[in-house]
Amino acid sequence: MSQVANETAQVTRTLARFIVESRPGDIPDAVIHEAQRALLHWIGCSLGGSRHEALECALATFSEFSGPREAGIIGRKERVDILLAALMNGISGDALGFSDTHLKTVIHAGGVVGPAVLALAERTPVSGRDFLHAFLLGIEVACRVGLVVYPWHYARGWHITGTAGTFGAAAAAGKLLGLDEQRMTWALGIAATQAAGLREMFGTMCKNLHGGRAAQNGLSAALLAQKGFTSSNHALEAPRGFANVMGDAPNLAAITDGLGTTFEVSQNTYKPFPCGVVIHPVIDGCITLKAANSIAAADVRSVVLRVNPLVLELCGRKTPATTPEAKLSVYHSAAAALIKGRITEQEYAMSCVSDAEVVALRGKVVATTDAAIRGDEADVVIEFADGKSLHHHVDYAVGSTQRPMSDADIETKFRGLAASILPATAITQLIENCWNITKVGDAAVLAKLATARSI
Amino acid sequence: MSQVANETAQVTRTLARFIVESRPGDIPDAVIHEAQRALLHWIGCSLGGSRHEALECALATFSEFSGPREAGIIGRKERVDILLAALMNGISGDALGFSDTHLKTVIHAGGVVGPAVLALAERTPVSGRDFLHAFLLGIEVACRVGLVVYPWHYARGWHITGTAGTFGAAAAAGKLLGLDEQRMTWALGIAATQAAGLREMFGTMCKNLHGGRAAQNGLSAALLAQKGFTSSNHALEAPRGFANVMGDAPNLAAITDGLGTTFEVSQNTYKPFPCGVVIHPVIDGCITLKAANSIAAADVRSVVLRVNPLVLELCGRKTPATTPEAKLSVYHSAAAALIKGRITEQEYAMSCVSDAEVVALRGKVVATTDAAIRGDEADVVIEFADGKSLHHHVDYAVGSTQRPMSDADIETKFRGLAASILPATAITQLIENCWNITKVGDAAVLAKLATARSI
Repeated sequence: MSQVANETAQVTRTLARFIVESRPGDIPDAVIHEAQRALLHWIGCSLGGSRHEALECALATFSEFSGPREAGIIGRKERVDILLAALMNGISGDALGFSDTHLKTVIHAGGVVGPAVLALAERTPVSGRDFLHAFLLGIEVACRVGLVVYPWHYARGWHITGTAGTFGAAAAAGKLLGLDEQRMTWALGIAATQAAGLREMFGTMCKNLHGGRAAQNGLSAALLAQKGFTSSNHALEAPRGFANVMGDAPNLAAITDGLGTTFEVSQNTYKPFPCGVVIHPVIDGCITLKAANSIAAADVRSVVLRVNPLVLELCGRKTPATTPEAKLSVYHSAAAALIKGRITEQEYAMSCVSDAEVVALRGKVVATTDAAIRGDEADVVIEFADGKSLHHHVDYAVGSTQRPMSDADIETKFRGLAASILPATAITQLIENCWNITKVGDAAVLAKLATARSI
Repeated sequence: MSQVANETAQVTRTLARFIVESRPGDIPDAVIHEAQRALLHWIGCSLGGSRHEALECALATFSEFSGPREAGIIGRKERVDILLAALMNGISGDALGFSDTHLKTVIHAGGVVGPAVLALAERTPVSGRDFLHAFLLGIEVACRVGLVVYPWHYARGWHITGTAGTFGAAAAAGKLLGLDEQRMTWALGIAATQAAGLREMFGTMCKNLHGGRAAQNGLSAALLAQKGFTSSNHALEAPRGFANVMGDAPNLAAITDGLGTTFEVSQNTYKPFPCGVVIHPVIDGCITLKAANSIAAADVRSVVLRVNPLVLELCGRKTPATTPEAKLSVYHSAAAALIKGRITEQEYAMSCVSDAEVVALRGKVVATTDAAIRGDEADVVIEFADGKSLHHHVDYAVGSTQRPMSDADIETKFRGLAASILPATAITQLIENCWNITKVGDAAVLAKLATARSI
């Protein structure tokens, strides 16, 4: 058997060994920094999602069955048992569709891995350094498992954040629990056999349940393995294991290639705007023009956009009537960006969607498609009634891999998501604790601050 | 669109409507009786599995996270919250590999549907008549959903009891909760998107976890739907729904064909012996000969078996050294049956596997294969040292579809499984309550008796 074949024949155990043997000191500084960004960004998204109807409904269902109330729910005052906290925080993590994205697999890892380790950290004290390390390893495992089965898996109809995410949550929780190699192997297996979530559920509350169950089932897997609950030792690679059942011609080498050397969290991207990602270049262009010029909507004769054909295919709604529709409208998004100078949840609230000035301006937006324009590119021309015009070409939109959001961008986004949820002091302290997490003595401070609800 | 296409385009809703509209009075008496057999048989199997290591380990893991301890664990004294009770009782249901089998799909439905409704019955009083009706409907749903995707689904590597079983538990729990058509549709969808379980886990504790999660997640689905938690309305039939993602060229008509007229519980079979089903005809023959004749093992010169080729392929171990190996040995099974006159768990205990008399007799067993012998058929000849011989031909083994276990057989099996777990009075009362369940005022009496542990 070749070296590669040997390795892929045992990838579950190889992955388990890596998780067990990895030490915080093994991780390059740049990777640590990216994990800190992912951590801050995740908590922000979860704060923003903490009033989502799926969370409210699940909490109303399960709260009465809670065990010892040892853990908090991000952005809320209620306390529940740690397994239920993982479920709730996993539901809010991507509730706004605004969370970190590993573009190679479209996995939103932060919001499923974070809840598993945060719940444990509330139960058993852990240093910020070890906490971030477990969080980072969980993201690594979720993304690598996703790479094994992507793209067939996603195309088939699996919600990959729910499926691969379960492995990530199990790995991160297992790391905090200090599982040995055999128990970590079992934890991955127990995760594999609970992996679930159908894309058919998109547009319903079940989409959010997937992230919640991934966090909760991953945490359960680690807790079960700790007690000696057995699974197959070949959950990933066996003929009837995860990769072959939920994948097709899976790439098992994605587990081992560069393991411990390259880190998938480095490939994480963050969405600056809470809407369809294909509209982002246009929004970027409009905000840039608005920031540099004095623009009165009444003076505008037309806004001429040149965009990738996918923009109109996915987000071509001319007269959106609801918030979800507005998030899929390049017309509304361009007009709101030019008037408000920003795009946040508030620019998709009904007060803005039905605002007379916005409605008037969006009627002047003309979009033409051009196959030569890339997906992360856009061209914006504003023509005024007096004949003057403004032009801006977005070569790479903010948030793209080529032009990632800066730390300051992520902070700004965090503040926007947290503003109506947490007191200002808690927001500032959370930001500071995330940037300094490796020096924090007890990571539970994150939960304490994120549930410090005085608004 | 043809009538059939119309129906299969809405099978999730059609199934939900059927569950909601079905009334106990709609069910034929023979089907009611079969459901009573399934009920008694399930509780017996769960009692027998109540000391299984998977249950012990899961209970040790999760007990500390239990919420209000409103429900019992079959065969045990501990009480836990209803969701955890569903998990635990779902783990024990098929822990011995001895439970009811819907041969067309190899689903063991009783042990995943029962725990969901029993837990609810402990919380909210329900008549035995309604309880049995919900139990029966849950089995119906699990088996019909299984038929949609079988055999591809199982061959691909899905543990169909875990996947299809989740729908059954959701349907039964939703029926007891009185969900309306929309909520029942959502419950089926929430079940669909949690359906999981890989056959790779067979031989490990995770195999039992599948039944537990099916029961627990199905119950959760019904509770969530009751609170208005939304899912797709087309969870079964959508292009990215359960049938197309976890099946291949699925047969959606299996949901609607004869719905409300034919009942899948009528296809349930029950295993008389706790070992590989292919050995059952030989055991049947040996027990029959032993019962009718005085046989001293020392006088036997040889035991000559003619069997289907599959018997030696699957169960050809000549000198088993462990309990699991003995369960896969036609040699041990024949010898033990001839000496003990029965085959129960005790005949596979190490005390019997290593018993000198059994070991000596199994050395005299000769098995020849004959492709003309069907799987449920066997021929047994015992030759004695004095030249005499005995012969018995088993045309259809007990427990086969053609020769189902009688009510008395099921009672005897139940007593054997319960003997070391419950006091004799509770055993007798449980049997009586199952046969008279439609007249029982409060179905929670089943849980009370099944947890009446005084041994």
